[in-house]
Amino acid sequence: MPSVDVAGEFETIRRLFAPLAHPEWGRGLLDDVAVVPTRPGHDLVLTKDAIVEGVHFLPADPLDTVARKLMRVNLSDLAAKGAEPFGYLLACHWSERCGWPERQAFCDGLREDQRAFGVALLGGDTVSTPGPASFSMTLLGWTPKGKTVGRAGARVGDLVFVTGSIGDGWLGLEASLGKLSLESERLGALADHYRTPMPRVEFAGPVRDFATASIDISDGLVADLGHLAEAGGVGVEIDLEAVPLSAAAQAWFEGRVDDQAALEKLVTGGDDYEIALTVSPRDEAAVRREAERRHLRLTRIGRVTAGRGVIARFGGKPVSFDKGGFSHG
Amino acid sequence: MPSVDVAGEFETIRRLFAPLAHPEWGRGLLDDVAVVPTRPGHDLVLTKDAIVEGVHFLPADPLDTVARKLMRVNLSDLAAKGAEPFGYLLACHWSERCGWPERQAFCDGLREDQRAFGVALLGGDTVSTPGPASFSMTLLGWTPKGKTVGRAGARVGDLVFVTGSIGDGWLGLEASLGKLSLESERLGALADHYRTPMPRVEFAGPVRDFATASIDISDGLVADLGHLAEAGGVGVEIDLEAVPLSAAAQAWFEGRVDDQAALEKLVTGGDDYEIALTVSPRDEAAVRREAERRHLRLTRIGRVTAGRGVIARFGGKPVSFDKGGFSHG
Repeated sequence: MPSVDVAGEFETIRRLFAPLAHPEWGRGLLDDVAVVPTRPGHDLVLTKDAIVEGVHFLPADPLDTVARKLMRVNLSDLAAKGAEPFGYLLACHWSERCGWPERQAFCDGLREDQRAFGVALLGGDTVSTPGPASFSMTLLGWTPKGKTVGRAGARVGDLVFVTGSIGDGWLGLEASLGKLSLESERLGALADHYRTPMPRVEFAGPVRDFATASIDISDGLVADLGHLAEAGGVGVEIDLEAVPLSAAAQAWFEGRVDDQAALEKLVTGGDDYEIALTVSPRDEAAVRREAERRHLRLTRIGRVTAGRGVIARFGGKPVSFDKGGFSHG
Repeated sequence: MPSVDVAGEFETIRRLFAPLAHPEWGRGLLDDVAVVPTRPGHDLVLTKDAIVEGVHFLPADPLDTVARKLMRVNLSDLAAKGAEPFGYLLACHWSERCGWPERQAFCDGLREDQRAFGVALLGGDTVSTPGPASFSMTLLGWTPKGKTVGRAGARVGDLVFVTGSIGDGWLGLEASLGKLSLESERLGALADHYRTPMPRVEFAGPVRDFATASIDISDGLVADLGHLAEAGGVGVEIDLEAVPLSAAAQAWFEGRVDDQAALEKLVTGGDDYEIALTVSPRDEAAVRREAERRHLRLTRIGRVTAGRGVIARFGGKPVSFDKGGFSHG
């Protein structure tokens, strides 16, 4: 494409992006394509997510965390499918505020996460936009042939697990907007979770080995369990009081008057980037052991039923959900 | 990603995009990833281009042609590398003007070009932006193992060829902006070329078989030949009067007073999406035969030299180029 890019497309690629390129497959970002040798016995797994300033990240967010969030929301999708990431393509739609220092910060964030997660840049495009900045990433990974875990596949009687804790993404957004009153350390932890969530890439192997179905929690726990239920033609029953909270979320929760309403916010808020997975009861011990080996919190929150949709219990009483939100039944 | 999308992300995916999905690898767009089986004996070739309203397409351009342009600029990149396309991922950053009819038009354009070029949708993301609309596509293709043609590889003495005609992209933009006075039929043909260029996908095979180096012409003939020269550590000499023009471009050219200045515009304007390739003299007859079989115009415009950069001759006199533009030497 001819690209009208004020800070210089060629300079941006040569000085900032080329050092991030895969040494062989990215062709130094000097060609128009990346070339990836196929890997016998494996399937290629691809995901592509886009983020827009003012919609998915805040105008005040530093560009290094924007880059890391972009990478992590994509890493989360692969991890939940049991895939091992190896490379990515990137489209940067720079806004006017993205001068050289901001682009450098963006690439610093990418570099840090490339090291942390073992991926390399394969190619992409950099363009200018008169509107807000936006970015998209296509992330590539491998699974052993036929082993990619789907949304469908949960069987009646399977147990429902979730990694990490739920609600920090939504609380982090609230914290970033100055809407929470908590100790500053708590607020910082929550805002960090919103800006740079922690994808559960280390759990891709156990997901592949033990999950009958899985999904990453981006739209909200209830909505995403709803996707699992729909795709599998099953129901999912969860116990709201079993939903795992971080220390910061617990501190916020304890300051609420209406426990049920508070939990409603946490399980519908989204931006968690944890993995929800269904597992046969006979694999419960094994999957728990794998989580412990990785010092990863793994919580059983419910089970798969012969019903449809998601039913949650609070204080033993069923609460039904409608389109990801509560309808107090 | 949680997506705030006024016209409804789920509805857009389910009703508009799902019918375009690859029947197997796209997983009905119901999962968060695409899964592509690797193809033994082949390399995976990937490209990713982004286009922004007001930068790469005009606000008045209908969305079906925007979708087709997006696909075609990416197809052009693969064709120039000798790759055969099979699928794509898409990120749509819809602006406020992109209501349901516009999204439908966008998908109509995709459908038409999917049929024409034999590709299918694998996945992606759809988000809303408060700014101008923008779109990015990651296009995937195969080449036989090790056969992807690079920018580097041209050898001294190779001949330089170009497919189709040069300058219609730039003239098409001028025509769309009402800046040209020509017969309306000519204006229409040029504007069509700007909105829906014709990628030379049918020439990928001959490129693979005969090109020592190749590139698609997006930045402008001179700039892109400069990329070939730089990557190969060689010089490229072309004869400006040999540069092929379409009938419409010829009509415009004949109305100019300064022939050299007119040609300057055409060979630096960009948006051509033709292929420039270098070929050994012993393969000239064979590559010409392949073009004829496809009814594709193929013009020899110069040769590869032991120099550096691009030298053009006009009326026998050398004209040197600086950064893609003319410097009358």
